[in-house]
Amino acid sequence: MTRSSHAPMLNETHDPTLRSWVDSANWPGHDFPIQNLPFASFRRRDRGEAWRGGVAIGDAIVDLAALHCGHPFDGLAAEALAAGAEPQLNALMALGPAHWRALRLALSRALREGSPLRALVEPCLVPQAEAEYGLPARIGDYTDFYTSIHHATNIGRLFRPDNPLLPNYQWVPIGYHGRSSSIGVSPQAFRRPRGQVKAPDAAAPVLAPSRRLDIELELGVFVGPGNALGEPIPIAEAESHVFGIVLLNDWSARDIQAWEYQPLGPFLAKNFATTISTWVVTLEALAPYRVPFERPAADPQPLPYLESADNRARGAFDIHLSIEWQTARMAEQGMPAHPVARTNYRYAYWTVAQMVAHHTVNGCNLQPGDLLGTGTLSGPKPEEAAAFIELTQGGKQPLTLPSGEQRTFLEDGDTVVLRGWCERPGTVRIGFGECRGTVRPAGK
Amino acid sequence: MTRSSHAPMLNETHDPTLRSWVDSANWPGHDFPIQNLPFASFRRRDRGEAWRGGVAIGDAIVDLAALHCGHPFDGLAAEALAAGAEPQLNALMALGPAHWRALRLALSRALREGSPLRALVEPCLVPQAEAEYGLPARIGDYTDFYTSIHHATNIGRLFRPDNPLLPNYQWVPIGYHGRSSSIGVSPQAFRRPRGQVKAPDAAAPVLAPSRRLDIELELGVFVGPGNALGEPIPIAEAESHVFGIVLLNDWSARDIQAWEYQPLGPFLAKNFATTISTWVVTLEALAPYRVPFERPAADPQPLPYLESADNRARGAFDIHLSIEWQTARMAEQGMPAHPVARTNYRYAYWTVAQMVAHHTVNGCNLQPGDLLGTGTLSGPKPEEAAAFIELTQGGKQPLTLPSGEQRTFLEDGDTVVLRGWCERPGTVRIGFGECRGTVRPAGK
Repeated sequence: MTRSSHAPMLNETHDPTLRSWVDSANWPGHDFPIQNLPFASFRRRDRGEAWRGGVAIGDAIVDLAALHCGHPFDGLAAEALAAGAEPQLNALMALGPAHWRALRLALSRALREGSPLRALVEPCLVPQAEAEYGLPARIGDYTDFYTSIHHATNIGRLFRPDNPLLPNYQWVPIGYHGRSSSIGVSPQAFRRPRGQVKAPDAAAPVLAPSRRLDIELELGVFVGPGNALGEPIPIAEAESHVFGIVLLNDWSARDIQAWEYQPLGPFLAKNFATTISTWVVTLEALAPYRVPFERPAADPQPLPYLESADNRARGAFDIHLSIEWQTARMAEQGMPAHPVARTNYRYAYWTVAQMVAHHTVNGCNLQPGDLLGTGTLSGPKPEEAAAFIELTQGGKQPLTLPSGEQRTFLEDGDTVVLRGWCERPGTVRIGFGECRGTVRPAGK
Repeated sequence: MTRSSHAPMLNETHDPTLRSWVDSANWPGHDFPIQNLPFASFRRRDRGEAWRGGVAIGDAIVDLAALHCGHPFDGLAAEALAAGAEPQLNALMALGPAHWRALRLALSRALREGSPLRALVEPCLVPQAEAEYGLPARIGDYTDFYTSIHHATNIGRLFRPDNPLLPNYQWVPIGYHGRSSSIGVSPQAFRRPRGQVKAPDAAAPVLAPSRRLDIELELGVFVGPGNALGEPIPIAEAESHVFGIVLLNDWSARDIQAWEYQPLGPFLAKNFATTISTWVVTLEALAPYRVPFERPAADPQPLPYLESADNRARGAFDIHLSIEWQTARMAEQGMPAHPVARTNYRYAYWTVAQMVAHHTVNGCNLQPGDLLGTGTLSGPKPEEAAAFIELTQGGKQPLTLPSGEQRTFLEDGDTVVLRGWCERPGTVRIGFGECRGTVRPAGK
């Protein structure tokens, strides 16, 4: 393997002094400065256009299909641009790190103040306010992991009070397969699910709308080049198979889950909707925010196939995450969504590279555009809980919102907004945009 | 809903006296008489051809792409033929029962003795011996159910001796999401998976090739027209969303499963390979073999959303199933695969219609080409066990094969062949072909 297949390294595209000729990209605190350059699938609303790839810069989108027609780049960057112009990003994801790096560098140079390509690129900008978004990729398989030991312990305590953290947790990056068809892109509105629920003292279950509808704040990892069936991906090469990261809300019906999940795991409790954010932040954009992967010395250390020097030195990501809640009444009164929890991806017990290495160690094949959820990213403190069941202690401690309304689980009309961002000394802040979802009433 | 959306009824295509001008289709006991007409995706080997849909008749395949060029049919049958000519059958599956019925009737008439279309159809026949097969559909999502109460009890006893059948089993058609990417079509060869395994008395797990590699004899149900997210499919309409059925082998690494499966269900123990048979037998072809769905009167009866008069009267299928085992030595010595178990789909505790109604009751959307596994179809008797872990009582009672070799779980080079067929008084026997898979040694 060449160096290029490993975790992305810092280069000129990360220079915090870079400024763009797109003014809004230079505004302090903007999610999409020139150091970010995340990808989405989009089209302008109400024009009957085909979907195409785009890159966010400030309040605008570089329309990759339009840009491709002007043939501004050469070599790998041109090949990557052609792939990025397609309706979904699977072909770009399949190309791999050398192509991604070339396209990012070419876009960074073209969007910088003083770029001679400005006259060619500027007509390819679309205001984000005029866009609608599709799923960034055709997601073949969606796997959800369980990488926060804090979440596993908190939720385990609620479902199995005497046995919260199972003996395999510190050895196995636990994961399971989720549902691809019901993954939607932000903003997603979905019906409250019905399902079998059974009160502890009832003799029989009933079919009813879920009354314990919850969220799970996660990140979603988009797979780049896949592997052949039977050919595991070694951990040292794992990150060369990862394109980028989105926010992910794994909506969960806790009452349905409690009754159905034994012995084969969650099913209808989670497959009615999963919402991801619009923009895929690339692994390369996240390079300045890498941090060491630390595990308490008293804990079992990972088996060799889950261990590498690179993973230890910089396997984790310092990504700040927040949850905001807005009721229908708050929305009517013009009150913004209210922050109810904050956490960070660096608390995860297993890294992205470990997820990829574990998923394939048995020969399972990943494909470009597959999505890996990190699992609920609760941190060590109570206010860092990333699901309402944890934040409200199983629904026993309601939250009070600025409207005076109390909440434990979601009511009809409620909206949840997830946000993510990175900021470290000596870097420019970059953001993930938002992941927004709204609960509609159950059907008849 | 019109009558057409419900379970297929008997019609002239089921007449047991029909004979085809394709001689081999009339041979007694052949899997593919004119009453069957199953679908596959195929191409002739070594010709660089595109994949296309085909229909089995005796030892031949009707090449639907070639037939479509001759425009032999009108109306719905012509539309269905055009869809069936595509490389995979998703478009045909999406059309629904009226189209499927029209195409089946047109093909049945064209293939009967004395058909005036013989001269047009005969040049479109390809010998099965010259064909290779692809997956019949692009499988978006694969869900695996757990519909045999005998399997659930047997396996539960091995994994949880004091608590074999969980309290939800008789109420909930338990299912979970499986892996689409590693589904292959028969004949499939795959590497023995490696994974974390932990001996009961060991302090820590190790990474090793599975030593308890098993099969699960299942059926796979291909979804036809899907449903919109948030719109459940009522049980009375469920079968109008089902295209047909294949054999399915859910290869399972029991040692990996035992260590990983708590609390989110099986993952790497099953996602390294799943093999399905080549030919999709349509629900309409199976109409003569429908039987009442019977549940012991002492058991809880299904909740209303899982109950219908039609499901009660004919919700089950009388499909005979068998498992054959062949070691590498047997193959070398020219010994055929040896039958080791026989069971029947009619023993299932939940029907196809109940799987569809349950899967969507929360609003989860199914899509054309999705695959639903029935779960391991063990019957009530010990010799009707549909997995080796049951057949050998957890690996304690080896089987002796005709070569004199003993087996509990699969050794490298072993081949397993699943077969399925229907035969009832007053009908012609129809078959599913075979589902064949071979274990290769683990990689390095």
